[in-house]
Amino acid sequence: MEIAINEAKKGIGAVNPNPLVGAVLVKDNKILAMGHHEFYGGPHAEVNTLNKSNDTEGCTLYVTLEPCSHYGKTPPCTKLIISSKIKRCVIATLDPNPLVSGQGVKQLEEAGIEVIIGVLENEARNLNKVFFKYIENKIPYIFIKAGITLDGKIATQSFSSQWITNSLARNKVEKYRNFFSGILVGANTVIQDNPSLRCKVLGNRNPYRLILDKDLIISEKYSIISNNEDQKTFIITSEKNINLEKFQLFSEKFSIKFITFSENENLKDILKKIGSYNIDSILVEGGSGVISSFFKEEIYDGGEIIIAPKILGDGLAIPFLNGFSPNMIDEGITLKNIKINIYDDNVGFEFYKEEGCLPV
Amino acid sequence: MEIAINEAKKGIGAVNPNPLVGAVLVKDNKILAMGHHEFYGGPHAEVNTLNKSNDTEGCTLYVTLEPCSHYGKTPPCTKLIISSKIKRCVIATLDPNPLVSGQGVKQLEEAGIEVIIGVLENEARNLNKVFFKYIENKIPYIFIKAGITLDGKIATQSFSSQWITNSLARNKVEKYRNFFSGILVGANTVIQDNPSLRCKVLGNRNPYRLILDKDLIISEKYSIISNNEDQKTFIITSEKNINLEKFQLFSEKFSIKFITFSENENLKDILKKIGSYNIDSILVEGGSGVISSFFKEEIYDGGEIIIAPKILGDGLAIPFLNGFSPNMIDEGITLKNIKINIYDDNVGFEFYKEEGCLPV
Repeated sequence: MEIAINEAKKGIGAVNPNPLVGAVLVKDNKILAMGHHEFYGGPHAEVNTLNKSNDTEGCTLYVTLEPCSHYGKTPPCTKLIISSKIKRCVIATLDPNPLVSGQGVKQLEEAGIEVIIGVLENEARNLNKVFFKYIENKIPYIFIKAGITLDGKIATQSFSSQWITNSLARNKVEKYRNFFSGILVGANTVIQDNPSLRCKVLGNRNPYRLILDKDLIISEKYSIISNNEDQKTFIITSEKNINLEKFQLFSEKFSIKFITFSENENLKDILKKIGSYNIDSILVEGGSGVISSFFKEEIYDGGEIIIAPKILGDGLAIPFLNGFSPNMIDEGITLKNIKINIYDDNVGFEFYKEEGCLPV
Repeated sequence: MEIAINEAKKGIGAVNPNPLVGAVLVKDNKILAMGHHEFYGGPHAEVNTLNKSNDTEGCTLYVTLEPCSHYGKTPPCTKLIISSKIKRCVIATLDPNPLVSGQGVKQLEEAGIEVIIGVLENEARNLNKVFFKYIENKIPYIFIKAGITLDGKIATQSFSSQWITNSLARNKVEKYRNFFSGILVGANTVIQDNPSLRCKVLGNRNPYRLILDKDLIISEKYSIISNNEDQKTFIITSEKNINLEKFQLFSEKFSIKFITFSENENLKDILKKIGSYNIDSILVEGGSGVISSFFKEEIYDGGEIIIAPKILGDGLAIPFLNGFSPNMIDEGITLKNIKINIYDDNVGFEFYKEEGCLPV
């Protein structure tokens, strides 16, 4: 099952909003084949594995997620497993969708296949924290990233921010950019940094670029607008701006997609709209105002705050979080389920609302 | 030599401002005795070791610091080594005092003893970073400690600060309190926290308590004044306050010692005066103003900033450092020679002006 989980991880960055799944085919304690779910809408891990072997009869199939039992983009995997005459199927975790959970197992058992459930279940569930969250209510999994100084700043008072963290830490951020479907930043971050918001690691896919720009203040001079051949830039703005000339220009000339919201809608409503575009997960990269909103409304599933041994010592420098005023220490925000990551002389505090770490 | 270094560490907290020294006596690859410098003014490590064995002739003596060759509080160790008929003396590091460095070696060699120098030299030098700094110019070694939130605060805007860090991290601070001769805090810290500034670990000695209180604003209601049976409380204040009634009261009724300074004297001048009381090292524990002064004047040898996964998110909360205004990231303070310490979900950034860590 450990091998199957590692197989599953090979799909990182390619399968969203499908789950990461891996499978291993074993006979007489020998591995005959292994495979994973390789890309969104593509053949499932079970198919990719079973198709690699002509000798499936009597085998044990290890699979990290309950095989599907319904027709979706591909035919049900249970059908192939049964026709392959598999003897035993070891499943790490059931499908979290209550409507289908257990159905796959039921079909296999009715066909006389021995089914074992729960081997390395936690590890397999961690693999698909994003998927499990997203299919529940179609709201993207939210992961907050910030690179800060020892005194909690993301930029000097004149908005200098390059670079606070070291290259090892920034490499980790690239991995996150490949892992999550989208990156979200505020309009001010675009204006100050003119970021590309692309994944710079060769072979990895670029995430969707989501700009929270209520008042539509950014202009076409920023790379994120003018450089949109892949049509992955979204602007999230007030519905009041629909009739602005800029709105039309961005849509028509630069193929920018817009997600609009009314005065009455909150962050959660906006995230639902983002989720409707098959964006199952968002890396929130800043700036201060955006990160603060997510903490204010307590809409985050996890994050990593990376600290560099630098100090600005300036009350006017830009804090990574603002807008609270706790009276006592215990009234502040306490991050939970901490994992410490060391990047040479930088340190990341990885945190999660619920137990278990992402496989990044 | 590794054993000798570990022996030396047993003197932590007891020998200041003397150096930590350990020794091991070996014959035919067997350890006959070992010892260390146990307390300030007490017998040296060599004496404590050689006195434990009747069979010193032809032995090898390992010692972490060059044996002394002069009469101080005790007779010269070289004399005892020579009379013990030691065959070979292995020394980790020479005495840093240029006036005596090499003199001990010379005496031993003239008596026909084979001398080897430089075994585990870095480790032995780290052992006595404090001693080496102090004997050079009698200015105490300065180590800055702060326990901060992820956003760099040491207290809420209403001065709540208990507890930011976890108990593992606070235990480390107790070790520092035992290691350094003195603790220094500002008067505001006394007023807000009424700290005891004692070492709470049983069997360890209490450090000197140094209060930086320029305007003599603290009163006898604070524990540090009223609870001074060990007469280890010093107040560092402006010479203008000498004639105040409070000055007299504190001296006479509570045996508080005063160190005064004039308008023209800076932090370094004050530290020299503190050094003249045999205080070889100071743990600077805060608050914000005091820590900032040490950073402003760049008077620190090392420190540890411990970060807890808590966030206050409040621009009015108390930062651990203030008073700078860098324009670019590179103009901020960059801590050097970082060692990362993990205390469960707290992380310490230990830093030093020069390479090598303290043996705490």
